[in-house]
Amino acid sequence: MTAPRPTPTLHDVAKLSGYSTATVSRCLNFPKQVSEKTRAKVMAAIAELGYSPNFGARAMAAQRTNTIGAIIPTMENAIFARGLQAFQEELNAHGYTLLVASSSYRGDLEESQIRSLVARGADALLLVGHQRAPEIYQFLEAQQVPAVVTWAYAPDGPRPCIGFDNRASMRKMAEEVLRHGHRRLAMISAAFASNDRAVARRDGILQALEAAGMAPEALQVIETPYGIETGAEAFADLMQGEAPPTAVLCGNDVLAVGALNRAREMGLSVPRDVSIVGFDDIELAQVAYPALTTVHVPHREMGQKAAAALIRRLGGGGEIAGEELFTELRLRDSLGPVPV
Amino acid sequence: MTAPRPTPTLHDVAKLSGYSTATVSRCLNFPKQVSEKTRAKVMAAIAELGYSPNFGARAMAAQRTNTIGAIIPTMENAIFARGLQAFQEELNAHGYTLLVASSSYRGDLEESQIRSLVARGADALLLVGHQRAPEIYQFLEAQQVPAVVTWAYAPDGPRPCIGFDNRASMRKMAEEVLRHGHRRLAMISAAFASNDRAVARRDGILQALEAAGMAPEALQVIETPYGIETGAEAFADLMQGEAPPTAVLCGNDVLAVGALNRAREMGLSVPRDVSIVGFDDIELAQVAYPALTTVHVPHREMGQKAAAALIRRLGGGGEIAGEELFTELRLRDSLGPVPV
Repeated sequence: MTAPRPTPTLHDVAKLSGYSTATVSRCLNFPKQVSEKTRAKVMAAIAELGYSPNFGARAMAAQRTNTIGAIIPTMENAIFARGLQAFQEELNAHGYTLLVASSSYRGDLEESQIRSLVARGADALLLVGHQRAPEIYQFLEAQQVPAVVTWAYAPDGPRPCIGFDNRASMRKMAEEVLRHGHRRLAMISAAFASNDRAVARRDGILQALEAAGMAPEALQVIETPYGIETGAEAFADLMQGEAPPTAVLCGNDVLAVGALNRAREMGLSVPRDVSIVGFDDIELAQVAYPALTTVHVPHREMGQKAAAALIRRLGGGGEIAGEELFTELRLRDSLGPVPV
Repeated sequence: MTAPRPTPTLHDVAKLSGYSTATVSRCLNFPKQVSEKTRAKVMAAIAELGYSPNFGARAMAAQRTNTIGAIIPTMENAIFARGLQAFQEELNAHGYTLLVASSSYRGDLEESQIRSLVARGADALLLVGHQRAPEIYQFLEAQQVPAVVTWAYAPDGPRPCIGFDNRASMRKMAEEVLRHGHRRLAMISAAFASNDRAVARRDGILQALEAAGMAPEALQVIETPYGIETGAEAFADLMQGEAPPTAVLCGNDVLAVGALNRAREMGLSVPRDVSIVGFDDIELAQVAYPALTTVHVPHREMGQKAAAALIRRLGGGGEIAGEELFTELRLRDSLGPVPV
């Protein structure tokens, strides 16, 4: 145990950065109103000092608030819902309250939500994916707030992960698609910016192509905002192109279900005319017709284990040990042989 | 404006209730460890004094934290997801952060989450439905935390509502079902305890029966925990009974989709052999096959308006004016004439 440092104040940040407290405050609350240069200097001072905008709450939090925060990319469409529910059940069973914020897949919003949750006294955080500004990790370190990364796994990530390997999981699915004889593939993906899971899933497909001796050009990729309707539109675009794919790999089940719906509306039979597969195995996948072939993610196990790890850590259990969980292919009805 | 009362402390609560501060604290943090009688006395003292467990955070919150809390019954299955997403978008556009807690449909958990969010400095709250202990409303009043009730509407409710009339909405659907000639009806509902929306929807069906001169016994009701699989099981139970219904009205789309799936597995054609309808019009309803006839709830409008009302209120705009929003029947493919 080291002695706690004196808690840094807004004045300390102003002094170190060379700006007024008003500017520092504006930087924190209305970052778009200050120049990039000012913001960079102020944020550097904040990171160096480990300043938290809401000292009162933070000081109080040193006594433990029994609140754990989670920042997820979206509350819509239930992709994170089941894992989060299991996370919450485990927390409640141990007397913790969960507070959730959703970043709408925006890095800037995620950062302000992390700061806000810490300022409100969150004892620990669940985060989704690795990719965020190093200042955020520095901030969490300075504030001594443990965090666990979920929905992704990397043994050497910036924080311990309890999650799964998105690239290897999607590669397995792509290999299964290739085994069915498909050679003209497409991917409908959520936007790659601020989403390391989406990038890893695409890379998994590309690895499978390479291992099969195919050129990366065999894969068309459409990035689209995330939703059933956007998945449907992306599918229509693909099928009306010059060389329509025979198999469409979707970055998640929500996009895949949109594609399935649109195929039906276009009079295409799945999988006879075209195969469609998803990722996540949320309930939508089983409800869809035909039932969706997808990658099953152990959402409940992940949520439960992430909660248990944070609870152990807060109880003095030492650093969190990361754990890789494993996905499985769920072969249902939407993947078939390549049309002849 | 009245002068603020001195902030009550844990000691004040102990004094008034006649217990030690340790007992008061245990009562707040581990209510199951104290007797019902002790808890009642302590909670009465808390309500009378308007005590908030976390004075430090609350005092700070008097300066506004730009955080608004929402307590929803569940994060699973996306029933509350779309409304909440719209709520959050409107808040973010005005510089507010949303923190969400989920009560798993448990009144006791909801109460502790409300207290926790207020203690963490939430400026205002979104609540779902009216039904909760009067002490909670007294607590919010004492803490001067404005709250808006959503997913329900009553002009004389304990808090202003921005929502819809669950009873009238389900009555409209039941009338439509009766118009199709059905006389043996069943309802698959989420549990009625702590869920005034579920109760109101059942009452709407009973009103429609009464108006049609039918006995309430024409309606079989199955209560079940909420989920696709539980909806499927309830449907199987109904169809294997002595007088299976010709139309099954589900309290929400999630249960209805479970029923649809099970019908398909049982070799029943919907709506030729049996009609199934839902409530909510979440995305599941459109993805289901056949597409689900359901009650469309204006989720996005409700979330957006609830946020705007709270923001106005916090900006000094006076008491929140409730607003009734309107649902609509969405007649898709799962309701048909009574089988001959």
